[in-house]
Amino acid sequence: MLSGAPSSTKSVNRGPGLTDVGVVGAGPVGLAIAWRCAQRGLRVSVYDDRPGSGASRVAAGMLAPVAEAYFGERELTGLLVESAARWPAFAAELAEASGVDLGHRTEGTLVVGLTADDLAEAGRLWSYQQGLGLPITPLRPSALRDREPALATRVRGGAVAPGDHQVDPRRLVAALRVAAERAGVTFRPTRVGTLSEVDARVTVVAAGCGAAALTGLPVRPVKGQVLRLRAPAGGPPGFRHVIRGYADGEPVYLVPRADGEVVVGATVEERADVEVTVGGVLRLLHAAAELVPELTEYALVEAVAGLRPGTPDNAPVIGALPGRPGMLAATGHHRHGIVLTPVTADLITELIVSGEPDPALAPFSPARFSKERPWN
Amino acid sequence: MLSGAPSSTKSVNRGPGLTDVGVVGAGPVGLAIAWRCAQRGLRVSVYDDRPGSGASRVAAGMLAPVAEAYFGERELTGLLVESAARWPAFAAELAEASGVDLGHRTEGTLVVGLTADDLAEAGRLWSYQQGLGLPITPLRPSALRDREPALATRVRGGAVAPGDHQVDPRRLVAALRVAAERAGVTFRPTRVGTLSEVDARVTVVAAGCGAAALTGLPVRPVKGQVLRLRAPAGGPPGFRHVIRGYADGEPVYLVPRADGEVVVGATVEERADVEVTVGGVLRLLHAAAELVPELTEYALVEAVAGLRPGTPDNAPVIGALPGRPGMLAATGHHRHGIVLTPVTADLITELIVSGEPDPALAPFSPARFSKERPWN
Repeated sequence: MLSGAPSSTKSVNRGPGLTDVGVVGAGPVGLAIAWRCAQRGLRVSVYDDRPGSGASRVAAGMLAPVAEAYFGERELTGLLVESAARWPAFAAELAEASGVDLGHRTEGTLVVGLTADDLAEAGRLWSYQQGLGLPITPLRPSALRDREPALATRVRGGAVAPGDHQVDPRRLVAALRVAAERAGVTFRPTRVGTLSEVDARVTVVAAGCGAAALTGLPVRPVKGQVLRLRAPAGGPPGFRHVIRGYADGEPVYLVPRADGEVVVGATVEERADVEVTVGGVLRLLHAAAELVPELTEYALVEAVAGLRPGTPDNAPVIGALPGRPGMLAATGHHRHGIVLTPVTADLITELIVSGEPDPALAPFSPARFSKERPWN
Repeated sequence: MLSGAPSSTKSVNRGPGLTDVGVVGAGPVGLAIAWRCAQRGLRVSVYDDRPGSGASRVAAGMLAPVAEAYFGERELTGLLVESAARWPAFAAELAEASGVDLGHRTEGTLVVGLTADDLAEAGRLWSYQQGLGLPITPLRPSALRDREPALATRVRGGAVAPGDHQVDPRRLVAALRVAAERAGVTFRPTRVGTLSEVDARVTVVAAGCGAAALTGLPVRPVKGQVLRLRAPAGGPPGFRHVIRGYADGEPVYLVPRADGEVVVGATVEERADVEVTVGGVLRLLHAAAELVPELTEYALVEAVAGLRPGTPDNAPVIGALPGRPGMLAATGHHRHGIVLTPVTADLITELIVSGEPDPALAPFSPARFSKERPWN
């Protein structure tokens, strides 16, 4: 199908007049793969008519391997922990390479419950996380409020996950574009309809929800509505930690940026439209204001919806497409695309350069869906 | 001060080479005055660098002399009733003259209360309105729901004001611009800093909140936040009446348009900024969804804030500026600018043409503020 495509992904060497790696999708994952490959001396083209316009534009940017460690997702949790561990060096290198401030913050995350029921629900989860040996520590209400006096007095309790950080996804995309360009990556502002349009030895499909149509992978859109607020008078928000909580059964997170922005998210809806609804906004604002009352005085500056690339087991799809030589997937990151960007880029780049998949990729191989749904 | 300005507003006749009437402000009031004056053969210029960008852009367009008849505002109520009575003919003439559909709807208004307390509050007001002889009729809950099945089952009761109609203010502005232009009005896309910049025999200040700086009148900004929703699937809203209600003490109105839009308003805040706040949006959406639950499925397409021109007695300022020959004011319409557009335009035009104020203008004369605050 591909002219000049190798029959396996083994050890791509530079040939004359041909792109080594074609990346479909200029979100954080695709851009980071392109940057890393270019750093290894490969000739890379990135195909996207609207870079950074997918799930990352809506994402909050929590780097939360602990607070996002859910029951029944141990392999995913392992990958989240691994990628989060790579984030500080990745952020430093990228900021240096691009000159762009990523808004990377390391104050950590508070997980809180508004009512006794909310606290019980949060507590069940952090007990599980502690059982995995992950760093999360319950706090007395007084200690919670010492850390963040902006929390409502009604908040019954919570815990701190000091290693769950944050980054600004829009700044991340901007930085990756600069770094990739400086490393020699070519940008092709075109929408890829079929993979035969990509003229490269290896093609990496990092197209988020678009991967389904391109590859037949079982990636489905999961709608999320997200709000952006701004603190009054040009000041910073009145809290510094990421705050994740339950308010009368409604999960919500609040991500404060140094520039005054607060991201409030997110709905999780099995829908493919990107409409902002009254119900979504109402639930998010209500829960947010219950946890941090001063937010009622903040400006509401943006309400948007995006589509996360979800998979049947909530884990990403990273690796070679079975039966399709020279074709790799790096998609299905669902709610974890930002935190998983460094490890995905590193593992895909290693696979391209060495021709051998890292054992860490085994649980995330596209082949795991082959029995259910053959590639067409 | 004005070159060629007459020493009174008496009977403006066309002179050579001079504009007869200069209108400052291209909102509905200013545009309607310009249109009416041009229809009388006067040469008219309208000054505004951003026509239709003031309070009217945010306004919902309720034509509600009855539901807006509040305690202690009998003279204002009289003017509202008079202007509302002129609306059907005004709308028909304007639609004909402009070819623009105004979105004028005559299904009437329901006034409802969610809780027993809300209903008691609404009931006190409509008893007062009935006492004035205004057309508002309490309905049994079953009759209320027969008229609008979309109302929440929790709604305790309400009344119907069949003569309280609506129009789309943005369409109104578009229509008035076309009609005024066709009638020969000249548009000057400039922002007037002082009235000496207006070269006309008579100057009409219809600049909304901007009138304060131009004239010294005690017109102050009263902030209002308003939301625009859209019914699902391109259909019309699931209700046809304007719904005004109280929901747990929160006043809110819902204005359904034939094109699928629903306007939800409005906060009333003594502030001069136009920031949309979390608290404002939350209160409006919460109250709206309590009264009409299906609204949670609607798209939230716009959240804006505007500044109404308020006055010390909540009534507009219409007439000659004392001590300033050739200067008229038509401002201070506060929450009533749309409904008061026809009567304001008619009375100001009559005053310009005849030189004599209609007795109906007496309570609204700018002179009523002279003792408190001399013109500077």
